[in-house]
Amino acid sequence: MTAFLTLVIGGARSGKSQAAEQRICAHAPPWIYVATAETGDAEMAERVALHRTRRDEGWVTCEEPFDLVEALDDAPQGAPVLVDSLTIWLSNIMLAEHDVVGECDRLIARLEANDRPLVIVSDEVGLGIVPDNALARRFRDHAGVLNQRVAEVADEVVMMIAGLPMKLK
Amino acid sequence: MTAFLTLVIGGARSGKSQAAEQRICAHAPPWIYVATAETGDAEMAERVALHRTRRDEGWVTCEEPFDLVEALDDAPQGAPVLVDSLTIWLSNIMLAEHDVVGECDRLIARLEANDRPLVIVSDEVGLGIVPDNALARRFRDHAGVLNQRVAEVADEVVMMIAGLPMKLK
Amino acid sequence: MTAFLTLVIGGARSGKSQAAEQRICAHAPPWIYVATAETGDAEMAERVALHRTRRDEGWVTCEEPFDLVEALDDAPQGAPVLVDSLTIWLSNIMLAEHDVVGECDRLIARLEANDRPLVIVSDEVGLGIVPDNALARRFRDHAGVLNQRVAEVADEVVMMIAGLPMKLK
Repeated sequence: MTAFLTLVIGGARSGKSQAAEQRICAHAPPWIYVATAETGDAEMAERVALHRTRRDEGWVTCEEPFDLVEALDDAPQGAPVLVDSLTIWLSNIMLAEHDVVGECDRLIARLEANDRPLVIVSDEVGLGIVPDNALARRFRDHAGVLNQRVAEVADEVVMMIAGLPMKLK
Repeated sequence: MTAFLTLVIGGARSGKSQAAEQRICAHAPPWIYVATAETGDAEMAERVALHRTRRDEGWVTCEEPFDLVEALDDAPQGAPVLVDSLTIWLSNIMLAEHDVVGECDRLIARLEANDRPLVIVSDEVGLGIVPDNALARRFRDHAGVLNQRVAEVADEVVMMIAGLPMKLK
Repeated sequence: MTAFLTLVIGGARSGKSQAAEQRICAHAPPWIYVATAETGDAEMAERVALHRTRRDEGWVTCEEPFDLVEALDDAPQGAPVLVDSLTIWLSNIMLAEHDVVGECDRLIARLEANDRPLVIVSDEVGLGIVPDNALARRFRDHAGVLNQRVAEVADEVVMMIAGLPMKLK
């Protein structure tokens, strides 16, 4: 299989995950699903379960809230990987007070060396009013910069709106 | 007149209503304006009045905060209808604690059987930071899913940004 | 040099300023940078400094939080001007309780008479959940209307998402 990196960006419930799954399923299984959400929270567990019911056999789920580089290194060679989502990963590393810039640099370096069909789902969170609290503003800034950096190394970038794709790259 | 369903989506003050009105006015009057806003609130009354002054003779206004299916059934056969807006309708049924999923299913079934020029205005609300409160998050989720479902059955989907249209379907 | 007005719109950290700078630098220097941010606040000062380090020699910075018309009138004839950003300017005049509609009318009249390469950066802030507080809602409304008005008189309108341009006009 050819190396090909797609970034699927969009808002809440815009059809990002489905668009990403379709891209992955165009390849032969096994399909690796890297879930970055920690399912401790009930609302989040419900979302993850919902995503899971939509996925067919052929999927192998791997939960990895922090180390996406390791998740990519550990996935079977050449197998298509879906990372869902970059935004939750960023939130995890910020809340755990890891080195955000360092972790982002490390991830980007790994993506530049991508050797498989890889689809990354990410939220666009910067199109509302500036948030009141400083942490949310910092998160929004990091998320925007990270999306730019992933878009720069991606082969394809798609923005989802109301379930419809808009090709950006 | 031919059956044709357009979804005009966009952010606050992005020119959605004007784009929708132009589409409707390409047909012969009478034009039916289905206003979903309840005008109890002063700020909202001002907005509705503003929209009203922009509209010419030839418009018939019908206020319907809850039952869009009935509003569509009651409109003169074949007359073009503008629904402004789907987002306010969703907000109304959520605040009144109606059965959201049931009401959305019923609306989508009616749209699938659409038999007139019909333009639906809806807000995209999912491109900001995740809201703090759970009701806003639920609303955002329902709004995103509803936009996807209407977009799926629509013949045309347009996103407005700064008064300019971006064709999505 | 030819008169040409570009509006670069987008969310937080979407690559707006860089896209704007690239457009300006396609012309011969000096390049006039009109910064509308007041640097009293530490977070803002940091952002302005960051932008400054990215800019080469050839730039002349002019800080003007309120009177963009004067800033444009005072800039050397024909020199390319970058205004960064319209949204911060709007915020400044609202917080200072100037006449928002009057100031916007005056700015638009000046832009209609534009006689130079001019790039205006502006935030799209209307694609999130309706804000709780009335001032933020008013700001969002004014910002949306102002973006529409500038887009209408602009020769080119570009929306940035994840550092990638989407041509709207």
